[in-house]
Amino acid sequence: MTVRGEHRWLRRLLAGLEGSSRAVPVGPGDDAAVLRAERRPLVITTDALHEGVHFRDGWASWPQLGRRALRACLSDLSAMAAAPRASLLALQVPRGMPERDLNAFARAFAAEGRRHGAPLVGGNVSRGARFGATATLLGILPRQTVTRAGARPGDAIFVTGRVGGMAVAVRARRAGRRVPLPLPPVRLAAGMALAGLASAMLDVSDGVVQDLGHLCRASRVGAELDMARLPLAPACRRLGVAGRALAATGGEDYELLFTVPARRLPRLARVRLGCRVTRIGTILPGRHVRVLDGGRVLHLRREGFDHFG
Amino acid sequence: MTVRGEHRWLRRLLAGLEGSSRAVPVGPGDDAAVLRAERRPLVITTDALHEGVHFRDGWASWPQLGRRALRACLSDLSAMAAAPRASLLALQVPRGMPERDLNAFARAFAAEGRRHGAPLVGGNVSRGARFGATATLLGILPRQTVTRAGARPGDAIFVTGRVGGMAVAVRARRAGRRVPLPLPPVRLAAGMALAGLASAMLDVSDGVVQDLGHLCRASRVGAELDMARLPLAPACRRLGVAGRALAATGGEDYELLFTVPARRLPRLARVRLGCRVTRIGTILPGRHVRVLDGGRVLHLRREGFDHFG
Repeated sequence: MTVRGEHRWLRRLLAGLEGSSRAVPVGPGDDAAVLRAERRPLVITTDALHEGVHFRDGWASWPQLGRRALRACLSDLSAMAAAPRASLLALQVPRGMPERDLNAFARAFAAEGRRHGAPLVGGNVSRGARFGATATLLGILPRQTVTRAGARPGDAIFVTGRVGGMAVAVRARRAGRRVPLPLPPVRLAAGMALAGLASAMLDVSDGVVQDLGHLCRASRVGAELDMARLPLAPACRRLGVAGRALAATGGEDYELLFTVPARRLPRLARVRLGCRVTRIGTILPGRHVRVLDGGRVLHLRREGFDHFG
Repeated sequence: MTVRGEHRWLRRLLAGLEGSSRAVPVGPGDDAAVLRAERRPLVITTDALHEGVHFRDGWASWPQLGRRALRACLSDLSAMAAAPRASLLALQVPRGMPERDLNAFARAFAAEGRRHGAPLVGGNVSRGARFGATATLLGILPRQTVTRAGARPGDAIFVTGRVGGMAVAVRARRAGRRVPLPLPPVRLAAGMALAGLASAMLDVSDGVVQDLGHLCRASRVGAELDMARLPLAPACRRLGVAGRALAATGGEDYELLFTVPARRLPRLARVRLGCRVTRIGTILPGRHVRVLDGGRVLHLRREGFDHFG
């Protein structure tokens, strides 16, 4: 952990965090953190939150952004059916950023990590022209994992929670309206409950249509998506047809998109996911995603979704 | 792993990397990477390399910067006596950066990781005003770890290799002279060999004087440092007295600074570290670092080194 020129701030921040424990024999403040050995396979992922790219000044409070950075990364663990164990945070700090804002961000990130089983064990601080945070999360697999690559023709496609809330909020913010950005949901329990049940899974970070394309590409299948079935966030539903398009193509909902073979559907009905799930389509053979949108049918090549980004 | 709008580049890059293996059942390209279970404690660290902060445009080639980003982070594992297992890379990419430069950086990072036991298993790509790379390294402890906190009065202080090379190169670059930036050394074997032998250890990222202060603070001791004993990099030695000051306060040498109790010095003489080691001082009681510099003696409070940064 190198923090050239930022040692005093970091020492003050670390004083407010936990020290070492049985699970974390060496916590923040040394060259690296040490975690106890785990008997299960490890899961590791990294995600970034940059001002000017993922949010703009004033869109959310610093504590909200800290929680958001942790939860967006946590979503990748959920999508692997993993249980969180530890978090790391690399910050870029513009000159003149008040220490209280930096503390508010870092403490909210750490508190959110602790709440979900991933205490902050290390990090890094550098200067930057704009604020940026790169989160890394380490977890384990309590059961087997679920990758993007197991979907087969005939599998049903589901999504957790509701989608489109973030896309509507970002559109409103860009238009100058002060609406709150929704916080990414925590789908850890759902992810772990789907191990052994879902044939493929990922989190909706790029939008339902694009992420379904990623799943189909990894699984070498096609799909049919019924837009009318998309579970829309309330703010999205109020926009009518435009809301449906936003929900399908907008990103950062961080819900789970997963597929289940027909024979396992009765088990899915019995398992507790802790959130709503909605069937939105079916896996098909081939290389295309057929999108049913009212009377229209769009045929999209599964490779061809980057233009939605 | 979210790479909104960058999927095609990332797919092309991943095609050039390894896929899954026994050690990495799920490699790059899914929501997170899965690594096999380890019987030993885990070590994790993160470090950043940003244009405009850690280097300027033209100071080094993209492959050199990729290797540098990996090695700087690897140095934190060396300092914990850890063995590398996996690496992750979060990139910030300015608009218009040629794909060949991005590939050159990422491929060199991945090749360097593979060479030292840490294959690239995941990452993230975002837009940024300037190029930036945040590396995360995961390792295990083959034996016990060595923290910053175990030094006791009477312990001898050592440094591996030679110091000051980076400080001289950065000074020359800032003055417009095209000298190569030295690549951080790899001290993994030395770090692991020092487990059970060194009482405290860290890597020299902020400069010998400042990093000795970190070690003293964590160990609650003082120290005496003899500047005349500092093993200077050749470019540094040529500068005479000014070179010695640069070597003591300049950062990013990434050598190991460690302490050894007197009773273990015979064992240190027998162990193979794969590099030179030089005794540069002695741990003392108290809260000060006494720096012997020719005829002068400087008394520095161990907490007071931030102004060197």
